Amino acid sequence: MITKDEIQHKIDNLNKPKGSLGRLEELTLQICLIQQTLEPRLNHPCHLLLGGDHGIEREGVSVSPREVTWQQMINFTHGGGGVNMFSRQHGFDLSIVDVGVDYDLSQVPGILNRKIARGTKNFLYEPAMSEAEYQQAIKVGADLVDACKGKGCNILSIGEMGIGNTSPSSIWMHLFCNIPLEECIGAGSGLNNDGIRHKYEVLSKAIAGFYGSNGSNRSNGQPIKPIQPISPIPTILAYFGGFEMVAAIGAMLRAAELRMIILVDGFIMTACALAAIQLRPEVKDFMIFAHCGDESGHKRMLDAMGANSLLSLGLRLGEGTGALCAYPIVDSAVRMINEMNNFQNANITKYF
Amino acid sequence: MITKDEIQHKIDNLNKPKGSLGRLEELTLQICLIQQTLEPRLNHPCHLLLGGDHGIEREGVSVSPREVTWQQMINFTHGGGGVNMFSRQHGFDLSIVDVGVDYDLSQVPGILNRKIARGTKNFLYEPAMSEAEYQQAIKVGADLVDACKGKGCNILSIGEMGIGNTSPSSIWMHLFCNIPLEECIGAGSGLNNDGIRHKYEVLSKAIAGFYGSNGSNRSNGQPIKPIQPISPIPTILAYFGGFEMVAAIGAMLRAAELRMIILVDGFIMTACALAAIQLRPEVKDFMIFAHCGDESGHKRMLDAMGANSLLSLGLRLGEGTGALCAYPIVDSAVRMINEMNNFQNANITKYF
Repeated sequence: MITKDEIQHKIDNLNKPKGSLGRLEELTLQICLIQQTLEPRLNHPCHLLLGGDHGIEREGVSVSPREVTWQQMINFTHGGGGVNMFSRQHGFDLSIVDVGVDYDLSQVPGILNRKIARGTKNFLYEPAMSEAEYQQAIKVGADLVDACKGKGCNILSIGEMGIGNTSPSSIWMHLFCNIPLEECIGAGSGLNNDGIRHKYEVLSKAIAGFYGSNGSNRSNGQPIKPIQPISPIPTILAYFGGFEMVAAIGAMLRAAELRMIILVDGFIMTACALAAIQLRPEVKDFMIFAHCGDESGHKRMLDAMGANSLLSLGLRLGEGTGALCAYPIVDSAVRMINEMNNFQNANITKYF
Repeated sequence: MITKDEIQHKIDNLNKPKGSLGRLEELTLQICLIQQTLEPRLNHPCHLLLGGDHGIEREGVSVSPREVTWQQMINFTHGGGGVNMFSRQHGFDLSIVDVGVDYDLSQVPGILNRKIARGTKNFLYEPAMSEAEYQQAIKVGADLVDACKGKGCNILSIGEMGIGNTSPSSIWMHLFCNIPLEECIGAGSGLNNDGIRHKYEVLSKAIAGFYGSNGSNRSNGQPIKPIQPISPIPTILAYFGGFEMVAAIGAMLRAAELRMIILVDGFIMTACALAAIQLRPEVKDFMIFAHCGDESGHKRMLDAMGANSLLSLGLRLGEGTGALCAYPIVDSAVRMINEMNNFQNANITKYF
């Protein structure tokens, strides 16, 4: 068992003023603890791009039409998406996975078929998925991570493609962080003020419906006040979640079990990280919060989780692009502890 | 002549919601304007690590002793410094240049000998360098950039090693940004409160001395109020500057002439960028502000210049490490405009 003190001692004896590599030093400490070593390594980085459609999209909560999900999934197989560029740039092994896209992609080369259903149900009226589907989605994520591990991977990032998936993310943030719903809703990929108000109304109603169907004494007509969820976490996740989102949660849980580093980026994946932490708080130790985007509420959600992102580049493309862009910073942190001289072998007058 | 509109048009037709790649889109625009092309390239990145000693160090304004400058310069030739790791990581051609170190490094393999003198004079009592030395330092920087250009370089970063060089940086910030001196002085690589107060007193006296010797009617006994510099810019630069700092300014000016991208990082290099902009405002168009460190005043100086850094990782090692760490982000921006599909060839329903 390598202790925090042992790692910190090594970091403090590197040839630099103490603390002068800032966030890189924090990252190194975290990674050494995850890997239980003073000589950490990043091996075979993998990126899972998980796609799924959302019943709630039928309520006009997104500016983009549903078909963009499958169109983009196919586009990713041609290499021309944001996730492709940055995966190539940083040497990530990219898997494009259909977990629940509302289109038959089974014959498209380059897309892994793990489809649970053609989109979730509309959670304005009923649970997005059944308990069995929820379990299946968790398992899809876990199995994908096992496959990465089998290829030697010890650092994983996850992205998503799913028109409408800021809606469940906002609801999870509201329920798990106890933040008023209106502060959890942003513009997604381009809603105007009317659109945001409409989204708020739809999501409010959906939450009221959930509590009605789950034995809450909240009356439907009342404005929803933020409260701690009264239902078990998985019930909430299954009621609102997307297949790609629950699969991401399953992936995060499994990655932590396997002591892999998890790069988290984006409003939706941060909501999934939040959900995974609700299920197993220790998962957070394995997460590096890579990027904070401009989506309203993303920063607040990170704050509520006590997380401080590495980058803040205003990306809001999704696909996990911010996680990929942060990878070289993580790599720098690992190089620091392995490659930097210490004061002894550098023959430097130690100055602090 | 490629216009901003033409570039923006290409960016807006890439397969993504408009603006969704945030800072990367701004970077792409800037780089396309610099290179006057819709297909920008980053070629043979070079890092200049410029070393010099400072007479003002004799006044106890730094926690680190002067000998650390030459010790670190030698250490860099062994590959174990921060600047080495990150140069290797990102494929930078690293030049380690003695512009004014107070030690004979002429026989050390791997250090370019461009020494002007063994350290500057102590600006508490006299100008740090003569006008001839100033011109020589400017030329050293320009010649180094010409050599980079000769190797095919079109993107340059600059770092420094010089114990005591936050002192001239603070003074330049004070004089050029019109910010009270006390707000321009930070802890350097580890001063305590007493040390910072002492540094303030020394620098105040030095500025009073400068104005006394340059015909100002400021009386020496009065506290120094921030004023616009009354002397020509080069006089100020020569009076307080380090050889490595003036060489950096010369390098920036030449790089801009050659339409190269300049990555700026760190309190000292930002002060040099500020100085270069005083000499030629158009130089700023070629600068990418890579990183904002924790040194008190760095953020304020960037704000005063209207600059917004890409990274904020709390690095305060110097050596230009923050510029190197930001390189992959710049690379991502260039890849975006070259490699990302547009809506037409991606067959995506254009959504905004």
